[in-house]
Amino acid sequence: MKIVKPVLIVDRAQVGRNILRMQEKIKRAATAIRFRPHFKTHQSAQVGEIFREAGITSIAVSSVSMAHYFASYGWRDITIAVLHNRMEIDGVRDLLAMEGMNLELLVDTRGTIRFLDEQLKGKWGQGPDATGKNRVNTWIKIDTGYHRTGLEWNRKDEIFCEVETLQKSKVLHFKGLLTHSGHSYRASSRDEIKGIYSDTVIKMEEVRNDLKKRGTGPCEISIGDTPTCSLVDVFYGVDEVRCGNFVYYDLMQLGLGSCRIEDIAVAVACPVIGRYSHRREVVVYGGAVHLSASFILSRTNEKIFGLVALPNEDGQGWGMPLEETFISSLSQEHGVAKSTPKNFSHIRSADTLMILPVHSCLTADLLKESTLLV
Amino acid sequence: MKIVKPVLIVDRAQVGRNILRMQEKIKRAATAIRFRPHFKTHQSAQVGEIFREAGITSIAVSSVSMAHYFASYGWRDITIAVLHNRMEIDGVRDLLAMEGMNLELLVDTRGTIRFLDEQLKGKWGQGPDATGKNRVNTWIKIDTGYHRTGLEWNRKDEIFCEVETLQKSKVLHFKGLLTHSGHSYRASSRDEIKGIYSDTVIKMEEVRNDLKKRGTGPCEISIGDTPTCSLVDVFYGVDEVRCGNFVYYDLMQLGLGSCRIEDIAVAVACPVIGRYSHRREVVVYGGAVHLSASFILSRTNEKIFGLVALPNEDGQGWGMPLEETFISSLSQEHGVAKSTPKNFSHIRSADTLMILPVHSCLTADLLKESTLLV
Repeated sequence: MKIVKPVLIVDRAQVGRNILRMQEKIKRAATAIRFRPHFKTHQSAQVGEIFREAGITSIAVSSVSMAHYFASYGWRDITIAVLHNRMEIDGVRDLLAMEGMNLELLVDTRGTIRFLDEQLKGKWGQGPDATGKNRVNTWIKIDTGYHRTGLEWNRKDEIFCEVETLQKSKVLHFKGLLTHSGHSYRASSRDEIKGIYSDTVIKMEEVRNDLKKRGTGPCEISIGDTPTCSLVDVFYGVDEVRCGNFVYYDLMQLGLGSCRIEDIAVAVACPVIGRYSHRREVVVYGGAVHLSASFILSRTNEKIFGLVALPNEDGQGWGMPLEETFISSLSQEHGVAKSTPKNFSHIRSADTLMILPVHSCLTADLLKESTLLV
Repeated sequence: MKIVKPVLIVDRAQVGRNILRMQEKIKRAATAIRFRPHFKTHQSAQVGEIFREAGITSIAVSSVSMAHYFASYGWRDITIAVLHNRMEIDGVRDLLAMEGMNLELLVDTRGTIRFLDEQLKGKWGQGPDATGKNRVNTWIKIDTGYHRTGLEWNRKDEIFCEVETLQKSKVLHFKGLLTHSGHSYRASSRDEIKGIYSDTVIKMEEVRNDLKKRGTGPCEISIGDTPTCSLVDVFYGVDEVRCGNFVYYDLMQLGLGSCRIEDIAVAVACPVIGRYSHRREVVVYGGAVHLSASFILSRTNEKIFGLVALPNEDGQGWGMPLEETFISSLSQEHGVAKSTPKNFSHIRSADTLMILPVHSCLTADLLKESTLLV
């Protein structure tokens, strides 16, 4: 492993373990649940193959471009798990035209439903769906507390109106209710995260029951954030699980308690370019354009832009991160690794440091052109 | 201007004004100063052409890859303004082999000087340099207070030893002392920033005078951060100015007082995908993978990931940012724009919002594939 410039190193075996653990938990549920991992974290056809080998066929993505990317690698069951962006209707049409494609869309207004209905009429339907006709599976986005997008879960009349509009469509098929409990990232304990899972499910089921009473027919429930999916003991009350970050995990998840340090499956290999013994710091080629500008705060309120490990001697992977050694500041192309008297000697003599990222989704996005599976 | 997905919009006229202002200040100095703008901010061949039209021929870059990129667009006087990364010696050799190339390098240890001396011997020299021989111009990086890389300015014996080692080289030519006063980004007032300029120059001149006394011959001084370069009334005590961010500016510079709001020459055009009247927020397609995860804090300690303006009606550029309207949270692909009762109606009816970025270098890096000059 000759590291010339910053490279994202993916521990293939750990990725496999992270996938297997989530799959097994999904299988343990009392009812059948579809695993539709979110591919926005890795954005990598190679990592996609590890999922494929594990039997995964359904995926979620966070942009039309990403749907095209994975479609070009043969994926044919894709949810674009962000609200439909009307400006990208042409890209959606192109995806729907692909042989064997099940593309699922997300909306939260009747305006967008009517827009899609108008724009996709004609030959763009697909199938089969529950009603036996060829239609585009469409989810209504529900806000259960994150307050980013979606109809608020307690606005039941509005939700019913949207479902009704969807069900009148000759092009779209109402597949169910989808939510992302991203507020789990702001939780301060594992129990709070588990509480967000049950709160999410209670709200989603209440909406589904309300729709059932109004006679709207079949309705799935899809959830997806990594913290709750990692921490809940058993899945219940859902038909689909869409988490994504769990494939790599990162320091943010570690801080939330949703993974252990050894579950983190990626590190950024960075060449050392400067050594400053008097302040026990080394400087790596590896900055915010490689790791992202994300940081977490230490117990003493210091910014941490990454933990620091050493490459394994066999050139495959990395060891446990060094204690009290971290990236303390980051500029465009530089990272400053700070250490203790004891550990400085290790990083001082290294040619390459392995940086465990704060937010692996952003790091993987930045380094998608230079990713290496080991 | 049909915005389908997030695009970096560059106001060509404002870029021209920002370049001209800096050039004129440099011309007003009592001594001749070389303007070597740092191209790491824009990383764009197109924006490079605006500099070329303004008569610029010398540039700085922050990686070997970036040097190759600009070399492929005909630039032939390039400083790689980061410490030499030994792992990239092949890339450096390829650059030096280019017809007419003056490539300048940066070191802060004798080890790297000896490494370069060994690796570049033979046909890799170039010229002409001050001594009339063909050598590779090399700068010694000095730390005047930023504490990222460089030899500390007051370690004069060590600096002298490095200069001596450089001057013994048959391959390298000692060009001078280079510093980056990045601590200006941590300053809390304009006066403090101006103070950092004079402090930097005083320290650098003290080192140069010390070297002169020891008989080392010609020695240039190169500086470069945008805050001091923007705020100092007149340049003095330097031979070269390498600032980069000034070409676009951003909210960080605005916060430091080094630019006015109208000097900001870039905005990210983002399609609106969600509208939430009850909380006066709209959601755009445009997240941390487009804007970067950087934020500044408002006076009331709220995170601001970008200011929000509306596109001009002619489809060219954008208006003044809307008051109390900003990106209050950012996930991978989404940004939440928050507004006041008065301004919400403006953003509610928009199809596209123009987001003024917090740190334009990172935003431009993320959107280099989708940049549009208007």
